[in-house]
Amino acid sequence: MSATLELARQLIRLDSVTPRDQGCQELMIARLEAIGFRVERMRFGDVDNFWARRGGDGPLVCFAGHTDVVPTGPLEQWDSPPFEPTVRNGLLYGRGAADMKASLAAFVTACEDFVALHPGHTGSIALLITSDEEGVAVDGSVKVVDALEARGETIDYCIVGEPTSDQALGDTIKNGRRGSLSGQLIVHGIQGHIAYPHLAKNPVHLMAPALAELAATRWDEGNAFFPPTSWQVSNIHAGTGASNIIPGHCEIRFNFRFSPESSAESLKERVCAILDRHGLGYELHWQLSGQPFLTQPGKLTDALSRAITAVAGRQAELSTTGGTSDGRFIKRIARELVEFGPVNATIHKLNECVEVADIEPLSEIYRRTLEQLLNTD
Amino acid sequence: MSATLELARQLIRLDSVTPRDQGCQELMIARLEAIGFRVERMRFGDVDNFWARRGGDGPLVCFAGHTDVVPTGPLEQWDSPPFEPTVRNGLLYGRGAADMKASLAAFVTACEDFVALHPGHTGSIALLITSDEEGVAVDGSVKVVDALEARGETIDYCIVGEPTSDQALGDTIKNGRRGSLSGQLIVHGIQGHIAYPHLAKNPVHLMAPALAELAATRWDEGNAFFPPTSWQVSNIHAGTGASNIIPGHCEIRFNFRFSPESSAESLKERVCAILDRHGLGYELHWQLSGQPFLTQPGKLTDALSRAITAVAGRQAELSTTGGTSDGRFIKRIARELVEFGPVNATIHKLNECVEVADIEPLSEIYRRTLEQLLNTD
Repeated sequence: MSATLELARQLIRLDSVTPRDQGCQELMIARLEAIGFRVERMRFGDVDNFWARRGGDGPLVCFAGHTDVVPTGPLEQWDSPPFEPTVRNGLLYGRGAADMKASLAAFVTACEDFVALHPGHTGSIALLITSDEEGVAVDGSVKVVDALEARGETIDYCIVGEPTSDQALGDTIKNGRRGSLSGQLIVHGIQGHIAYPHLAKNPVHLMAPALAELAATRWDEGNAFFPPTSWQVSNIHAGTGASNIIPGHCEIRFNFRFSPESSAESLKERVCAILDRHGLGYELHWQLSGQPFLTQPGKLTDALSRAITAVAGRQAELSTTGGTSDGRFIKRIARELVEFGPVNATIHKLNECVEVADIEPLSEIYRRTLEQLLNTD
Repeated sequence: MSATLELARQLIRLDSVTPRDQGCQELMIARLEAIGFRVERMRFGDVDNFWARRGGDGPLVCFAGHTDVVPTGPLEQWDSPPFEPTVRNGLLYGRGAADMKASLAAFVTACEDFVALHPGHTGSIALLITSDEEGVAVDGSVKVVDALEARGETIDYCIVGEPTSDQALGDTIKNGRRGSLSGQLIVHGIQGHIAYPHLAKNPVHLMAPALAELAATRWDEGNAFFPPTSWQVSNIHAGTGASNIIPGHCEIRFNFRFSPESSAESLKERVCAILDRHGLGYELHWQLSGQPFLTQPGKLTDALSRAITAVAGRQAELSTTGGTSDGRFIKRIARELVEFGPVNATIHKLNECVEVADIEPLSEIYRRTLEQLLNTD
């Protein structure tokens, strides 16, 4: 059994449902300390995190990831227990197999192999690991980044081990992510009996034309790296259940996934302009979950792409689609940041799995990328 | 104390929260039997009803009403206990004082006075009394009307004792009511993650332009007796609470209050035409709560108006506004039907009350109307 597969199995065996780490990080730390990493445990609230670094010079290459996993869902619907790593038909099954314990194992073995081959390497290698990526993400990477930023630490190249591959290992690198901006809108009306509409103001009726306009708005056209900004309603509620009452207010929750062609401020202004033009009385509460970020094609994407081609024989595509990840926090202190990992088809689902044949190549891709970025190849 | 006030107090003392009668009807029946009414008790399910008739010839004048009352609400917010009739500052307080125990008492004393004055009158007098008007109205007037219709009984003139007066006793007679048609609309979309809108179909977005059009539609212009038809949304719901999910469907509950210028069928067709034109996939469940009805100005309105002018010195206005009443059921077997009773300012509220000075005149108005319709004056 390969060293990476063995470590991935050990990590899966620990039931680290978010935000619990359950010993995953200590397993990694022991291996990293053995090859000369200096490790800082950074616990915030109930969340375990660590920052490990080998070397004092630049450039600094960082592997980032999370040990926590999403809940299993109904246990009886798994073909094998989610925290008993099981190989069937060439697939390694278990919660976190793809998201992202195979990547964590590959980080560690890539570092071990790299250090064994290049014990006197220039530059530095770091790992930034959290156990709160799948949950509220308040005491995880964002706090570690705050601490690093406070002491002036910066990262030159960061690889987040999220499962980015679509059909086959190496077909997709994420070189950015859209921003995420949420709003809670409350449109005010005047409650009343449905038989006396002239004494009431129906907030659903008042809201409808503005809602239609918001849904039809083209916010931007995206750009070479980003699809157009998307606005979506997630929830709309008005009425108490009573069938003879005109409701007093209507609440709408919505979310923007936005490209850098729009800013959070410009989107807020345009939403308010539409609501104001329709003469609505409203409250609007905003929450910015993440700014969009982009790593232009350059040294990091080139190194990773070449490593993928060498190991997997594929030409990786650059993409910025999909949900948010901790990349949005780490980019703040990272000059170049990408996400790369195994196939994501089964993440967050029952019977999550990863191809056994992808596990050792993943480690080799990470090692070869290190070699190029630290000029040892 | 007047006989009508005394009987109203006795009725208020019985806590007949819908659909319980609590002995109100037996109190009325004893008085009616004493002056020659033949009484049929018609209990359906848990609901007490009765039909009482004096005389075998036409024309038949019927007084209709209900002994049940709406719940009290918080007892501690009443200035006197709701089932202890209390006179303060010329007002009789108690749950049901205005809706409609003063009218029930006035029905009984009007009949007593009429029979005493005209023991050999021509025509017939009837009372149709239910204890399920304020609730679901399934086992009340509608069932009694079914039974009367089954044996071919018809009413020439019906006065429902609902509190129709607006500012002062006698200012308003209701000579019709709008229809009520409700709909439950479910617009289908495709649920999905908010970060991948191209894989989902947002039913709120799909629905919004149709909703705006429905809210802006002028359904008809009403007519001399009816305001224009009104369409109102009472409830709209989509989304599970999760902020990152595009909902799979959107549910809207709405209600038409419609004039006879539109029919239930025409309104259904027009709603579906709008939904279809917007290309929506939907389910739509209809409930017709009441057809609109109208009693043209004629013998009944003239007789009642003259009685009001004689007793209260006012010119009554004819109106068709407001909520539904059991008139919608009784009209089916009644040639002419109006609603008339005391001032409705406090009905269904805390500290419901009626002017003591209006109680005896109300009885006198009912009696004088009887006299005109049965040609005894």
